[in-house]
Amino acid sequence: MKTKVTELFKIKHPIIQAPMAGGITTSKLVSAVSNAGGLGMIGAGYLSPTQLREQIRDIKKQTSNVFGVNLFVPGVYSIDEKAIDSANKLLAPIRQMLSIPTPNTVSYDDSGKVFEEQVQVLLEEEVAVCSFTFGLPSSSIIDEMKRQQIQLIGTATNVQEAISCEKAGMDAIVVQGSEAGGHRGTFNDNYEGSLIGLMSLIPQVRDHVQVPIIAAGGIMDGRGLLASIHLGAEAVQMGTAFLTTIESGAHPIHKKAILVATEEETVVTRSFSGKPARGLKNRYIEELQPFESDLPDFPIQNTLTQDIRKAATNQENAHFMSLWSGQSPRLAREVSVEEVMNSTIAQAEAILKNTLNLI
Amino acid sequence: MKTKVTELFKIKHPIIQAPMAGGITTSKLVSAVSNAGGLGMIGAGYLSPTQLREQIRDIKKQTSNVFGVNLFVPGVYSIDEKAIDSANKLLAPIRQMLSIPTPNTVSYDDSGKVFEEQVQVLLEEEVAVCSFTFGLPSSSIIDEMKRQQIQLIGTATNVQEAISCEKAGMDAIVVQGSEAGGHRGTFNDNYEGSLIGLMSLIPQVRDHVQVPIIAAGGIMDGRGLLASIHLGAEAVQMGTAFLTTIESGAHPIHKKAILVATEEETVVTRSFSGKPARGLKNRYIEELQPFESDLPDFPIQNTLTQDIRKAATNQENAHFMSLWSGQSPRLAREVSVEEVMNSTIAQAEAILKNTLNLI
Repeated sequence: MKTKVTELFKIKHPIIQAPMAGGITTSKLVSAVSNAGGLGMIGAGYLSPTQLREQIRDIKKQTSNVFGVNLFVPGVYSIDEKAIDSANKLLAPIRQMLSIPTPNTVSYDDSGKVFEEQVQVLLEEEVAVCSFTFGLPSSSIIDEMKRQQIQLIGTATNVQEAISCEKAGMDAIVVQGSEAGGHRGTFNDNYEGSLIGLMSLIPQVRDHVQVPIIAAGGIMDGRGLLASIHLGAEAVQMGTAFLTTIESGAHPIHKKAILVATEEETVVTRSFSGKPARGLKNRYIEELQPFESDLPDFPIQNTLTQDIRKAATNQENAHFMSLWSGQSPRLAREVSVEEVMNSTIAQAEAILKNTLNLI
Repeated sequence: MKTKVTELFKIKHPIIQAPMAGGITTSKLVSAVSNAGGLGMIGAGYLSPTQLREQIRDIKKQTSNVFGVNLFVPGVYSIDEKAIDSANKLLAPIRQMLSIPTPNTVSYDDSGKVFEEQVQVLLEEEVAVCSFTFGLPSSSIIDEMKRQQIQLIGTATNVQEAISCEKAGMDAIVVQGSEAGGHRGTFNDNYEGSLIGLMSLIPQVRDHVQVPIIAAGGIMDGRGLLASIHLGAEAVQMGTAFLTTIESGAHPIHKKAILVATEEETVVTRSFSGKPARGLKNRYIEELQPFESDLPDFPIQNTLTQDIRKAATNQENAHFMSLWSGQSPRLAREVSVEEVMNSTIAQAEAILKNTLNLI
C-alpha cells in the first residue's frame, strides 16, 4: 500500500509503530517492525543519551531498514515543594504496601540538557526519522536536523497544534485522537478540549494543513488503517497493537491486562507522571483520582512515582503499575509483529476490494 | 450507495438524520432528508403524544418516503428534594439575570405513561422506523411493534449495550461514539468509561453483534461515511451536519455558534438535563461545572432548567442556551439538506474511486 508517507520515509507499508516509552520499544520490537516493512520507533523519552546511542547501534545490527526515534520536548514546569510534599503523603501508604522506603530527596534531571544531548546523538548516529511529543523544538534544532536530512514528525491533538507543527517545518504530523493510549501529546494547554475522537479530528486537521497526517489512537487492524486513510491520513501509528506482540518489551502482566480488558476500562489520568495519559483503570489510579488536579507537574510526578512503578512491576502487582492502553483492547492479540503487519495490510486490501460493490 | 441498512429501511442512501430533540427536527427537516434519499427522524423525546401524532401526519403530507421517530426510554430516577433545592439555589442568579421568576413548584410528567402513549401513536400512525435512546423498552412493547413490522433501532455507547440491543431484538444499532453531540445514550451506568471514539468503538462492536451498525458521532461528510463503513458500519447518523442546514429548526443563534466554533470548544455536561450531553461550552456550563455531580437526575434537572433555556433562547442569549454540538463544528455548513446529502455521497464515491490506486 503506497501513500505519501511510504514515499517520504522509504517504507513499504504506511504503518508506524508508536514510540512507547518506558522499556516497551526494545530493539527486538523496533527492528521487527522495520524488517516487516513498517517504521519501527524507539520511545526515547526516558532514555539517557548513552542508552539511546547504544540502542540505535543495536537496532542497526538487526535491520538495514529505516527506523526512527521519538523525543519528549522539555516544557516549562515548576518545582512546587508543597505539591511534592502532598503527593508524597498520598503515595506513602502505597509505598508501605509495596514495602519500599519513602525517599528523602528526589533528584530531577535537567530535561532541557538531556534533550539537547539526545538530539546530538540522533545527528551523530544519522537516524533517519525523529518524532517529537509534548511540543516543538527550537528552530535552530529543527534547522540542524533538516540540514542532515532527518525527517521530522510533530504530534498534534487539535487543529491549532497541527498548524503549529506545519509552520515549524515538520515533514509529517501524528494526529492523536482521544482513543490513544499512553501520554496525550497536547502542548497548547487546553487538555480538556483536546480529547477529540479521530472521526472528528482527522478531517478537521486535513482541511488546515498540507503535510501528510499519521493517524494515532485505537487503530488496531486493516479496518482502522483504511478508515484513517479515507478520513484524510496517509499512514497510521499503532501502539497497543504492537504492545501485546511477542517482540514487545512490555511486562507480561501489562500485556495480559490489555488482552483481557474491554473498551470501557481505560481512563485518562495525571496520577503517574503529572501529564494526562490513557491507561487501564486500577487501584493506583482510583486512589489518586480525587487529588488529580493537585499533583505536581510532569516530569516531577513521574520522578516521584518511579520507585512505585518499578516495585509494582518487580512484584508483578498490576494494581500499582501504569497499564497504558488505547480504547481498543478487545482487538489486541498476542502474536508476532509480522502477523500484525501482514494481517493489517491484507485486511485493508480485502475490505477495499469488497467495497467496490458499493458504487 | 447500497448497504444492508438501505435495504432494511428502503432508503436510497445510508444516511440517517439524527433525531435531535427540542424543536430541531421540524417537519421541514425530516421530510427534506427523506425526500433526498436519507432517513428523516423526528426527535420525539420531549413531544407529547398529541404533538407527535400531529407531526407524523404533517410529515406524511410532505414526503411519501420512509421516515422514523426516536423515543426516550424512561429510566429510574429519584425525586431528591434536597438536590432540587440546591439546584434551584444555583440557578437563582441565572434566573435573575434573565429576569424570570423562581418557580414555586415544578411538575414532572409521568415519563412512563407518556412513553407508552407515544408508542401507541407510532402503532396507530403506522410509522416505519422507531429508534430508542437511554435504554430498551419492555419485551411486550418490542413484540407489539415488531408484529406491526416497525423497524427498531437501539442506541449503544459500548459493546455491552450493543449486545443488549441485539438480544432485545433490535433490527439495527446506532453506535454512538464520544464525538457525538447532544445526549449520551449510555444506559449501563458506566458513563465515564463509555466515551469511546468511533475508531475504537465501531470495530469492537462489529465483532460482537450480527445486526447492522449505524455509526454516530462527528460524521459530517463523505470521508466520515466511508470511514464508518470501512470500520464495520452499514450507515451513518449525522446530527450537527443537519442541525445547521437551512431546513433545520435550530435557533439561528445555535446554528451560528456551531458555524464559528472549533473542535476544542465542546464539553460533556450534566448541567442542562441531568444526563451527560455534549455541547459548546458557554457561561451556563462553566458556572454549574463545580456542581455537576450534585445536580438532580434526568429528567428533573431538565424540567428545572426549561424556563432558563426558553428565556435565553427568546432573548437570543447564547450564554445560557444549550448549544448541542458534536466534535466536528469546523465541518458544519449552512446549506440545504439536499446539498449535505448529495455532497456526502458524491465525496464518498470519489474517494473510493481514488483509493483504488492504493492497491
